[in-house]
Amino acid sequence: MQVEITREFIERLEELISSRNETQILELIGDLHPVDIAEIFGEITPIEAKYLYTLIDEEKAAEVVAFLDEDVREKFLDQLTSKEIAETFVENLDSDDAADILSELSEERQREVLSEIDDIEVASDIVDLLKYDENTAGGLMAKELVKVNVNWSRQRVIDEIRKQSAEIDNVYTVYVVDDDDKLLGILPLKKLLIEPESIPISDMYIDKIQIAYVHMPAEEVANIMKKYDLVVLPVVDELGRLVGRITIDDVVDVIQEEADKDYQLMSGLSGSIESDDNIWTLTRGRMPWLLVGLIGGIVGSRVISTYEEQIQVHPEMAYFIPLIAAMGGNAGVQSSAIIVQGLANNTLRKGDAWLKFFKELSVGLLNGLVCAAVILSYNLLFGNSIELAITVGTAMITVIVVASILGTFIPLTLNRFKIDPALATGPFITTMNDITGMFIYFLIGRLMYGAL
Amino acid sequence: MQVEITREFIERLEELISSRNETQILELIGDLHPVDIAEIFGEITPIEAKYLYTLIDEEKAAEVVAFLDEDVREKFLDQLTSKEIAETFVENLDSDDAADILSELSEERQREVLSEIDDIEVASDIVDLLKYDENTAGGLMAKELVKVNVNWSRQRVIDEIRKQSAEIDNVYTVYVVDDDDKLLGILPLKKLLIEPESIPISDMYIDKIQIAYVHMPAEEVANIMKKYDLVVLPVVDELGRLVGRITIDDVVDVIQEEADKDYQLMSGLSGSIESDDNIWTLTRGRMPWLLVGLIGGIVGSRVISTYEEQIQVHPEMAYFIPLIAAMGGNAGVQSSAIIVQGLANNTLRKGDAWLKFFKELSVGLLNGLVCAAVILSYNLLFGNSIELAITVGTAMITVIVVASILGTFIPLTLNRFKIDPALATGPFITTMNDITGMFIYFLIGRLMYGAL
Repeated sequence: MQVEITREFIERLEELISSRNETQILELIGDLHPVDIAEIFGEITPIEAKYLYTLIDEEKAAEVVAFLDEDVREKFLDQLTSKEIAETFVENLDSDDAADILSELSEERQREVLSEIDDIEVASDIVDLLKYDENTAGGLMAKELVKVNVNWSRQRVIDEIRKQSAEIDNVYTVYVVDDDDKLLGILPLKKLLIEPESIPISDMYIDKIQIAYVHMPAEEVANIMKKYDLVVLPVVDELGRLVGRITIDDVVDVIQEEADKDYQLMSGLSGSIESDDNIWTLTRGRMPWLLVGLIGGIVGSRVISTYEEQIQVHPEMAYFIPLIAAMGGNAGVQSSAIIVQGLANNTLRKGDAWLKFFKELSVGLLNGLVCAAVILSYNLLFGNSIELAITVGTAMITVIVVASILGTFIPLTLNRFKIDPALATGPFITTMNDITGMFIYFLIGRLMYGAL
Repeated sequence: MQVEITREFIERLEELISSRNETQILELIGDLHPVDIAEIFGEITPIEAKYLYTLIDEEKAAEVVAFLDEDVREKFLDQLTSKEIAETFVENLDSDDAADILSELSEERQREVLSEIDDIEVASDIVDLLKYDENTAGGLMAKELVKVNVNWSRQRVIDEIRKQSAEIDNVYTVYVVDDDDKLLGILPLKKLLIEPESIPISDMYIDKIQIAYVHMPAEEVANIMKKYDLVVLPVVDELGRLVGRITIDDVVDVIQEEADKDYQLMSGLSGSIESDDNIWTLTRGRMPWLLVGLIGGIVGSRVISTYEEQIQVHPEMAYFIPLIAAMGGNAGVQSSAIIVQGLANNTLRKGDAWLKFFKELSVGLLNGLVCAAVILSYNLLFGNSIELAITVGTAMITVIVVASILGTFIPLTLNRFKIDPALATGPFITTMNDITGMFIYFLIGRLMYGAL
């Protein structure tokens, strides 16, 4: 059922497109899943894509557009008139997908497209969704859902469910609301079939349910759906009124994006760059953090340069510069990563900062002592001077402890100031620890050698 | 609807448990979601947990057990007899959850529990699932599904759907199979209601569907469900026979675990350790990679030590040791991270290794040139010698290029040998680049100064 879109496949398709061979094109791509056709759109010119688009049936074409990569979609939509956008796909998509796509257009274009939508209800749903920040529950939700009033008769409820679900692709749940549209709970279809006719809806719905508030951050929505294994989550506004529902597929994207973002920050990449990107994009994505490291390295060089004479007398001090720098970096990143994951998974206990401090101090000391013991033994065994052995050992403990503590509190502080704490896991923390490490190392060296 | 399990809450609950105050306990926890009760189980003793377990109703209690953390569950299950395990929750859970829990028990205990299960069909489903590796489609799937034979009459199909779905919590899809149980496609319920009575099932089902093979790796299953936005995916055996179905909630866990694992490897943590773990666990999780860094640092120190005299004459060489080491580490991690993400998302084009090589070479050269230009200007402006300026600049380009190429090919090679490529993103690659960096730096220095 799965296809690999090869270079040969694309070449063959482009030939068929240039000869306008409709039958063979449909033979080639007619049975493909929209997501696969979307992938093809990314490999051909927007004009070729426009031609393919006119060949496939409307509903499928709409899904193809929804699956396009954002940059591919931008170029593709330039080929369509506002009327075409409105008629051929906005009306064929769920409101959340339609709103997502519209939000990428200029405000003027948005207005044009909206004015071309015939169904006023569809248009107003989209207008409503466009209001919300894309990283909130409101930005994730769709308006399509099945809801019934708690006061309706059994027969009316059944009729309404039938009527409403006819217009919706996937009915996950039936929601129960009161006269003010306030969400009361969910109605299991089984109960509707099994319970005797005399039982009113008000005695049948389940009121212990998970909900999202419309301005809740997407990350929190993802945490709720993950924790409670939910496929769909209702969204309510400030007054508790049911305004939409979020399905798990959108949340899967949120989870993946969050993970990717943290990963990129840790690896020192700016934005989501892929191996397939061109050399220029790849360079641009990597340069910023390399420059941060560069500036850090220059600061580090100035710290070391103040110890020039010491190095001249004891060049062996220089041997362990990379080791001290690396250990500080590693310990710092470890601490930060634990905090960043704890914040992301919501598993981080709020609590006493002093407690955290002492814990990190203990862990740092334990790790530092073991590493210091190893390096001390090495230096003594391999005939380095006692001064050097003690200097490196002491610096090792100090650097690991300091890096662990910085690594814990920097992401916590960033988080408090609403800055992404994952910033603290990348080249930023390594660079800072390099500098602190050099400072500590040579200071201890100076004390130890009693020199200069 | 969400509760925060505070220390006060636990203390209050433990008081009530010790005074066996059943009414107030149920008032406190009766309305909680199973996942929240599972969280509470992690905070109290197994004996207290066992007591709570007997108070809540059977179906909910079974779900609580399914939501327990593995280590909490192990201790909790020790409190139950095999008969209790079989009767109170194995029979109340979906087959995949039951099998997951059973797989954590000793083989002897597994046999005891299985022999206590009354329903032979349930038992054999579980035995069947226990065969599969947990990281494959077979290990993720459940046996509960609704399937109909393509040759059945319309009425029989409707009756069977009704009958089969009565035993299943969530009916996502109706599967169509042939007489040999081979999966043919899915049957949309809407069609069953709308299409005229004369149309046979064979003309009604959709045969273009995504499937998983039973031995497919969990990661690949996750990629399919993500790509095609699926809520449920059927699983077939080698003969194409329908053997189970995978739901998105299990795949969300796979996605999260994959992301966490890559993140941990990159941050140099062993296993999933959390901020709340005790000092000993935290130290153990951090020590292994610190030791790797330590050994790397020792090797690095030996490389530098061969240039002792050079450092004595030109101590300014030492200033830029951390910079060169850091830039190699940063560039290497960037390259590796791009490859690891590409492999994970399946977006990495298979292709010419030479092409990759030249691309990485170009990106490395571009980045290296910019960084070298900056550092060259710095050194010249701040009055360092031309020799030093040229040495650092040249070493910078070389180190970034080499690190980029190593960073690309090490994860690719690991992957070819079925070793997790994410290994290449952590302290391993940084340490290796430190060593290579020092080697390159001092070699260039020696050539440049024409010294010693």
